[in-house]
Amino acid sequence: MREEILKAIQEIVGEEHASSAESIIHTHGKDQSDHERHLPDVVVWPENTEQVSQIVKYAAAHQVAITGWGAGSSLEGNSIPVKGGIVINFGRMNKILKVHEGDFQVTVQPGIFYKDMNKSLARHGLFFPPDPGANASIGGMVANNAAGTRTVKYGATRDNVLALEVVLPSGEVIRTGSRSIKQSAGYDLTHLIVGSEGTLGLVTEATLKLSPLPEHFSAVLATFETTEEAANAVYGVIGSGVGPAALELLDSEAIRFMNMRVTDLPEKPTLLMEFHGATAASINAELELVEEICEECGSVRFEAGAGRDERDRLWEGRHALGEILFSVYPESNYMITDVSVPISEFPVLAAYTNGLFDEMDIQGTLFGHAGDGNLHTTTFAPKDDAAKNADLHEFNSRVVQKAIELDGTCTGEHGVGIGKQKYMVYEHGEGAIETMKTVKKMFDPNNIFNPGKVISF
Amino acid sequence: MREEILKAIQEIVGEEHASSAESIIHTHGKDQSDHERHLPDVVVWPENTEQVSQIVKYAAAHQVAITGWGAGSSLEGNSIPVKGGIVINFGRMNKILKVHEGDFQVTVQPGIFYKDMNKSLARHGLFFPPDPGANASIGGMVANNAAGTRTVKYGATRDNVLALEVVLPSGEVIRTGSRSIKQSAGYDLTHLIVGSEGTLGLVTEATLKLSPLPEHFSAVLATFETTEEAANAVYGVIGSGVGPAALELLDSEAIRFMNMRVTDLPEKPTLLMEFHGATAASINAELELVEEICEECGSVRFEAGAGRDERDRLWEGRHALGEILFSVYPESNYMITDVSVPISEFPVLAAYTNGLFDEMDIQGTLFGHAGDGNLHTTTFAPKDDAAKNADLHEFNSRVVQKAIELDGTCTGEHGVGIGKQKYMVYEHGEGAIETMKTVKKMFDPNNIFNPGKVISF
Repeated sequence: MREEILKAIQEIVGEEHASSAESIIHTHGKDQSDHERHLPDVVVWPENTEQVSQIVKYAAAHQVAITGWGAGSSLEGNSIPVKGGIVINFGRMNKILKVHEGDFQVTVQPGIFYKDMNKSLARHGLFFPPDPGANASIGGMVANNAAGTRTVKYGATRDNVLALEVVLPSGEVIRTGSRSIKQSAGYDLTHLIVGSEGTLGLVTEATLKLSPLPEHFSAVLATFETTEEAANAVYGVIGSGVGPAALELLDSEAIRFMNMRVTDLPEKPTLLMEFHGATAASINAELELVEEICEECGSVRFEAGAGRDERDRLWEGRHALGEILFSVYPESNYMITDVSVPISEFPVLAAYTNGLFDEMDIQGTLFGHAGDGNLHTTTFAPKDDAAKNADLHEFNSRVVQKAIELDGTCTGEHGVGIGKQKYMVYEHGEGAIETMKTVKKMFDPNNIFNPGKVISF
Repeated sequence: MREEILKAIQEIVGEEHASSAESIIHTHGKDQSDHERHLPDVVVWPENTEQVSQIVKYAAAHQVAITGWGAGSSLEGNSIPVKGGIVINFGRMNKILKVHEGDFQVTVQPGIFYKDMNKSLARHGLFFPPDPGANASIGGMVANNAAGTRTVKYGATRDNVLALEVVLPSGEVIRTGSRSIKQSAGYDLTHLIVGSEGTLGLVTEATLKLSPLPEHFSAVLATFETTEEAANAVYGVIGSGVGPAALELLDSEAIRFMNMRVTDLPEKPTLLMEFHGATAASINAELELVEEICEECGSVRFEAGAGRDERDRLWEGRHALGEILFSVYPESNYMITDVSVPISEFPVLAAYTNGLFDEMDIQGTLFGHAGDGNLHTTTFAPKDDAAKNADLHEFNSRVVQKAIELDGTCTGEHGVGIGKQKYMVYEHGEGAIETMKTVKKMFDPNNIFNPGKVISF
């Protein structure tokens, strides 16, 4: 079967652009989550939309599973080909097709990596704001509705996608949306595809909203004695109408890890903020207000106006957090929690989660995009300690259920993938899940697009 | 048939809450567009979701059409019951269910009117920003993805809906989304329902994102000799990273109409802008930059810092534009154009449209939410001049086609309704339209929800 698929696919893309080599299928069998590896039969690197369409038509005719692949940086098993079949690696479809400079838009192929794209766009004074930390592919970001540190001001990926080219599970190619910022012309297929994790369509082209690189910015660090005080300050800042471009909460454990390699900060609960503005004066006016709010909430240290180098180091530390943790405890298993709640419930959730660390005697750190109500934890346990590893899952499960009880969601930005499916009915109710199933069946009656993800049946 | 439906519906809601009286069905047969009146058989005022569900179940069992009704202020025939049947007037489901003050959210029933809701929310220091001008119902705004003067900063309705309760064409009630700002948990049913004009589901509850009322604001008027200069200034302002809360273009004709009743402005192409900020200093810093940009683009007058009264009068004039025009020429037919393009194409579209006024000898005015690339015209012709009335349609059609050619859309904010269906394939292509049809058939296999709208078959 594998040989047959490979041969058919090689006929479409050329022999050198499809492979079933062990090393190849191994690296395409697992993302950055702790979910089990599943090997695809064939990995293919198409060159254009027409080839993708032909591959899909072959798969449709032969009932072979198809899973898209970008950077492999997903965190819920989103890109693991659990039913084998074909993995489409978009690595050769990685071009910027057009920078619409006057419109602050770019049209790209899905295989381009986020950081590479933003490096190119900087020459035009523009950037794509959703910042997932990892150097994800744009196709992956669109598929998972990725978000990150800049989302509090600029929105998630979903908020920044205007138009798509999509290959449907039939192999048909459609275009959705338009380059107009305002669109009311029919059903919003674009945003149905965004976040569908490759289960409804494969994105072969995306037109994204960009933002002008801020003329002026300022990074701010505010240190508190307790996480609750820091969380109250988050409220205050958001409620003041000031629009931070980032508002991250880091617990003392998180700061401790960051300090091991990158930063040198007091090991206390900390808010890391950034403000963007058209003028220095407008930012300074905002900063005064933010300082006042933080002081009212009990900040013991407030440091604004970091230079570019210091600011870059802070973000380097923030983004390196996971990596540092993994390297400090290499013999551990890790579990990354991603939940999101209405902002008023963030202190409640943070307190609950903190308590759970103690109650369950779990090692780990609490952090998150607090300005969005998005909370993460990274917990870890020795690989050979089965009981403790089970505890990590139990910990994750309890945090997720608490978030849903607080009117929140089981995933703010990592997507459903494999790991979050068990919470979908609890969060959405039977009716909405049945509707999602119907949508999936309508788009993909043979269940060949990333089967086993989001909605399984 | 009508009697039978009435009797069945009255059994659900009580005799006094459903009617087939001539005056009642007459007023529910037409919106504010020039599309033909169609009378429903029965108008019903349900009190709660359960009653809506029961009405829908009756309609599903008897293959009766159902159309939702809010304020009747739609502009593309969106709420006209072209197949008769039942109109559900949400006038009794008009409550604010909960203000989530700490989260800047509100949960409301669909029948509440936009202005009434914002009046209540002002007591909490909050407002729902999409400002359609008309006092639309929230249900209508959600159905049509309404937008308006504040959209350039705060987004359209779609961008400000977090969660919905929806009655499906089967009568089943589902909940979509959550109160978390960030959501990646499965298919985005919320935004599929928003803008579907009541053809996929009837919204019985909506949770909306709110914004804090700006602590400080400033209205700005910039006057130019030509529309092109004004359009260039729009670019400059948006490109600077300054985020105006409104950026309206009004041609000299529009100003002339506004001056007839409300304002006293130079009758030249004018940008009406507003800036919101947390501090006066931050706004002043932005205004300096905006003045510079406008001067570079050739502004002949720049007036910032209007007081609250003057600002309110400017917006009163802006919103009264249509009404003034209609009352000055009461014996005319009107045609309102709503198209939207990428902002770089806005000057091109404006120039084309201006030229068309001359070329076709059409009376009317050009205005729009320029900051979004959204252009409107209101054109008019004597009711008894059939040829001229045909010209209005031809004018509209040419502007729409030009907008689509410029990578734009046939409707930025009024929706597809009846009038824009003929452009859907041209804008989206056959494939996307077939996909939309499949979505409609999946949700509403009997085609009972607002039949004849968005996608007809």
